[in-house]
Amino acid sequence: MSKKAKVLSDETKLERRGLLLVLSSPSGAGKTTISRQLLARDQNLTMSVSATTRPMRPGEIEGIDYYFVEPTEFNLMINRRELMEYAKVFDNYYGTPISAVEKALRIGKDVIFDIDWQGSQQIAERAREDLVSIFILPPSTAELDRRLQNRAQDTEKVVSARMAKAPSEMSHYAEYDFIVVNYNVEESVAQVEAIIAAERLRRHRMIGLTDFVKRLQEGY
Amino acid sequence: MSKKAKVLSDETKLERRGLLLVLSSPSGAGKTTISRQLLARDQNLTMSVSATTRPMRPGEIEGIDYYFVEPTEFNLMINRRELMEYAKVFDNYYGTPISAVEKALRIGKDVIFDIDWQGSQQIAERAREDLVSIFILPPSTAELDRRLQNRAQDTEKVVSARMAKAPSEMSHYAEYDFIVVNYNVEESVAQVEAIIAAERLRRHRMIGLTDFVKRLQEGY
Repeated sequence: MSKKAKVLSDETKLERRGLLLVLSSPSGAGKTTISRQLLARDQNLTMSVSATTRPMRPGEIEGIDYYFVEPTEFNLMINRRELMEYAKVFDNYYGTPISAVEKALRIGKDVIFDIDWQGSQQIAERAREDLVSIFILPPSTAELDRRLQNRAQDTEKVVSARMAKAPSEMSHYAEYDFIVVNYNVEESVAQVEAIIAAERLRRHRMIGLTDFVKRLQEGY
Repeated sequence: MSKKAKVLSDETKLERRGLLLVLSSPSGAGKTTISRQLLARDQNLTMSVSATTRPMRPGEIEGIDYYFVEPTEFNLMINRRELMEYAKVFDNYYGTPISAVEKALRIGKDVIFDIDWQGSQQIAERAREDLVSIFILPPSTAELDRRLQNRAQDTEKVVSARMAKAPSEMSHYAEYDFIVVNYNVEESVAQVEAIIAAERLRRHRMIGLTDFVKRLQEGY
């Protein structure tokens, strides 16, 4: 089949720019569980892997969960402007290496970011048109507490610190495009999937639309 | 159960403002079929019924398909500012009575508008924050022609007029939020449903969100 015939066939699908999907929430609201299910169900999504100075937790894998780096190395990454965004959370630094995101977008993936409001604001400054931001809220504080307690890997002190930080984290909900209240994981995953499906259909993300319409207007 | 207990229960769902969902396309791209399937599948949607001066087609019902009015009456509606938008298409006038839209929004419905770019622009001027606009494109001109020919109620002359008008109608695609290329109806309906589901989760449409977050911050 010639290239021209392919372009004009009914099966031509428009290409589009990748999304930068930011999911933020207070710790324990379910963001990580939701992200994992999204990734398992949609081959077009990939997780942005952050660099962090915090110690590895049991079960975590270098390069999958995080790039674990020393504070000195993290500082170098900041100075070399290799980070798309970074923030200090609970005495540790977290940041997104630009190179990994660009690589994912080049091969047509949408990238999920599990970052907080500080990171979301920095991405908005750099790439507002590519950004889709979702804030996940717990249905109640009691439920947030219960979920944090059930997370076996954290000490009581860490759980308390996270609970104490929830109110100030939640104060940033109004900076996000969408709100998902996580009553149950399945419903929340479906809601985020609908947001992704819709945002993929945004006109400003479509590549080749002008040519496509021009051909229709010319009677092809 | 007391009112307070109800407010604080896990089952509390946030209320939201209704959507004004505009679907536009050249005649024959499938907009009417898609609208009907959406309405059949989602009780929360209702169709905006337009007033028109064009003659009733076989099978159409007054007050369901259109409010069929005389040109003099339509002119009065314009002068009384009773129309949300109106436009002249193929020598006939079409317009949306404000009262019907407001009634639907009051009872918590989202309203679908089967109108063209002129109407969409007028709604954008009045209610941009409530508007979600989708332009539906045919996969090819041949397919558009085939669909118009199969629409038995139109004369050959009307079909030709609609085909001739398609290029100029399509030139307005860039004024819309979303683009759906109607390769097949089922897929297109699913895409529009995803857009509706996502737009219902937009932060700016949620009512009571500030209070909801305040309660979470206070530890409820």
